[in-house]
Amino acid sequence: MAVQVSVCGPRDCTEDDRRHARELGRLLAERGAVVICGGYTGVMAEVAAGARAAGGTVVGILSRADREGANPDLTIAIPTGVGEARNNIIVNSGDAVIVVGGSWGTLSELALAMRRGRAPVVQLGGWRLHDQDGNPVPGIRHATTPEEAIRRTGLWS
Amino acid sequence: MAVQVSVCGPRDCTEDDRRHARELGRLLAERGAVVICGGYTGVMAEVAAGARAAGGTVVGILSRADREGANPDLTIAIPTGVGEARNNIIVNSGDAVIVVGGSWGTLSELALAMRRGRAPVVQLGGWRLHDQDGNPVPGIRHATTPEEAIRRTGLWS
Amino acid sequence: MAVQVSVCGPRDCTEDDRRHARELGRLLAERGAVVICGGYTGVMAEVAAGARAAGGTVVGILSRADREGANPDLTIAIPTGVGEARNNIIVNSGDAVIVVGGSWGTLSELALAMRRGRAPVVQLGGWRLHDQDGNPVPGIRHATTPEEAIRRTGLWS
Amino acid sequence: MAVQVSVCGPRDCTEDDRRHARELGRLLAERGAVVICGGYTGVMAEVAAGARAAGGTVVGILSRADREGANPDLTIAIPTGVGEARNNIIVNSGDAVIVVGGSWGTLSELALAMRRGRAPVVQLGGWRLHDQDGNPVPGIRHATTPEEAIRRTGLWS
Repeated sequence: MAVQVSVCGPRDCTEDDRRHARELGRLLAERGAVVICGGYTGVMAEVAAGARAAGGTVVGILSRADREGANPDLTIAIPTGVGEARNNIIVNSGDAVIVVGGSWGTLSELALAMRRGRAPVVQLGGWRLHDQDGNPVPGIRHATTPEEAIRRTGLWS
Repeated sequence: MAVQVSVCGPRDCTEDDRRHARELGRLLAERGAVVICGGYTGVMAEVAAGARAAGGTVVGILSRADREGANPDLTIAIPTGVGEARNNIIVNSGDAVIVVGGSWGTLSELALAMRRGRAPVVQLGGWRLHDQDGNPVPGIRHATTPEEAIRRTGLWS
Repeated sequence: MAVQVSVCGPRDCTEDDRRHARELGRLLAERGAVVICGGYTGVMAEVAAGARAAGGTVVGILSRADREGANPDLTIAIPTGVGEARNNIIVNSGDAVIVVGGSWGTLSELALAMRRGRAPVVQLGGWRLHDQDGNPVPGIRHATTPEEAIRRTGLWS
Repeated sequence: MAVQVSVCGPRDCTEDDRRHARELGRLLAERGAVVICGGYTGVMAEVAAGARAAGGTVVGILSRADREGANPDLTIAIPTGVGEARNNIIVNSGDAVIVVGGSWGTLSELALAMRRGRAPVVQLGGWRLHDQDGNPVPGIRHATTPEEAIRRTGLWS
């Protein structure tokens, strides 16, 4: 079975997020990794487009029970019908999880991935967490470029 | 996107079910369909093995949150972590649903596929349903061979 | 904790189903059981109305993520947001499961309850299952009246 | 239907979290609110104990498909069997969501509640979120005591 990498990020994202996601898709496809994503617009669409353009395989774990609104670059569509609970499935499906940009939905995926604790979690951009004393909450691997994000997964070191 | 066909069936199955499932996997792979299955043993393992031997792609929608117990012939593993609720996801993911053999879990998938009503449902072997007057409940397409099951999906007619 | 009994049945049901469900609600409330149901119309609404009129507690396990369409007789609403996967939750929540009438959704609940195998499953009306030799599939407890259905749960014997 | 308030928090929690949760349970029960929680130990057990001691109703939305490990103060147990996806159900079930203390699972519930955006979200203790410029991410209502948390839900103002 090929390596699977989940890429999470918001529908409404910045231009930087968009560029990062597309580049991540390309880099993952070049390494033979299957990309797992949420299957809709924004970061999800960009990572799918980047991977597909590089000949990769992209699985969209959709919240709806049908394919309405799914982006056109998915290789495989999984219309779960379980709504936002599909975030758990995206996170569980990755040998690593890369989170691009910030939104409440994206933060839930970051938190679920950290709670799961079985795969490296890399954050590219997005929000920062501090405890009540103002110290950063440890555990997340931070990156500033797609290349660094890939490297920090540790899957190809 | 390729055609996706969900194949459901019990862990504990008959020799006939086993043979049918493996042959279904082969026939679907030869037609370029992605096979969606539950990813464990019995009918799930046979359809995966049949598809893989013919060079096909197999997605295992697992009940567990990890890959423990997944069969070795999956191309892609989706460890949903939602338990038996993953049956809904298998059913939702098929452009057609083929049900092989009989068990309570398999019957739940047959029923969910019929309730969904968006894709043809073909039954190969397994249990029969009657209403209170003893008449067969209509809607399911019955088949006696894997070839007939494929044909009755209507996807390649 | 009080005994919890799950009552399943179709939105579109017969007059008999309706009467049976309302009577079941009353009988369960009189015995101090919490009624678990799907929370919408048809059998779900009748069992809730029957239980509430007798002073009982009714929990509606809704498929939607909000309360839209929920019947007015619920004591507690659980908007799961997981769609049809909520059928698993209804079934898991009962110390017994009573199934009234027939539909594909209802059959999925019957099948999931039998697959779970941890609580008695009683069927009042609805469809019948036979194996390939025409013999009834064993395991389901059949009843013809609400009183018999209650008795056959074995919870108050 | 009574007001429903979801209270989220970690299994492994501080003494402060514990005290806060128990007091929240009492205050909510006194106001006639149904308490929705995760049903296990830590904050979940304390809020249940507090509510029950004050004569309230507590619903435990369990991750497992059975009641193993459920705390003894639940009035109603809902063994969802959907694993961590049950966090979505807890969050969807509240007319307000109060989050006590910090953990990755708790953060996922906070994020899901904010993403849902249909009910006030109050945080008592726990982690803090900042954007990339170091500014607090807006939207969460902060409280330092259980009384303030109740007040900031706006349900009894």
